[in-house]
Amino acid sequence: MGDVINLAAKLALFDDHWAPRIVGKLNDYDLKVVKLLGEFVWHSHADTDELFLVLKGLLRIELRDRTVELSPFEVFVVPRGVEHRPIAEAEVEVLLIEPAGIVNTGDAGGPMTAAAVVI
Amino acid sequence: MGDVINLAAKLALFDDHWAPRIVGKLNDYDLKVVKLLGEFVWHSHADTDELFLVLKGLLRIELRDRTVELSPFEVFVVPRGVEHRPIAEAEVEVLLIEPAGIVNTGDAGGPMTAAAVVI
Repeated sequence: MGDVINLAAKLALFDDHWAPRIVGKLNDYDLKVVKLLGEFVWHSHADTDELFLVLKGLLRIELRDRTVELSPFEVFVVPRGVEHRPIAEAEVEVLLIEPAGIVNTGDAGGPMTAAAVVI
Repeated sequence: MGDVINLAAKLALFDDHWAPRIVGKLNDYDLKVVKLLGEFVWHSHADTDELFLVLKGLLRIELRDRTVELSPFEVFVVPRGVEHRPIAEAEVEVLLIEPAGIVNTGDAGGPMTAAAVVI
């Protein structure tokens, strides 16, 4: 059985950006933490929603028709199939929840693609 | 498409305890916020894990073989079928994530059973 997951302690284990780490499981979903800085690529996930919960910093998520801004303790669920681009002008720490096996760059691929590893 | 979910603002909308409110969806999962105070009933959920993320306060979750304690920004996933009893000596605010339709008291039922409503 799993232990208590201290999100801040997990985030302290790494410094790179846009590379999610898996810190737990909820049924067949992964719980991931990630640090963001700068602009990501436009992408979407055809088969699943994606939950962002900001833990630290201010996260902007561009959608094609609007932009949302998330402060700590705010949540946004990007619906499946919806193109989005996260932007972090300063470093942001995020909890992501999505089904296991989802790739960070979704349909877009490219050099920012990173396989999530368990920490 | 959904809006940004401010968890603190949602929690400010009610005062009662042990009655989860649905504040969002992630695929077929509900995102719920709840205030806890006192001792809940021993129960389990046969078909699903259950995620607790503490937003405020200190939450103790008794398991049959040990007790875990969660501070803000700590997460614990109770595995499916595992008996547990949340205890909050002072008020605790929690984000719960679990499949839609899960009842708070699981297999135990009783007077603390509360159907989650959307806010």
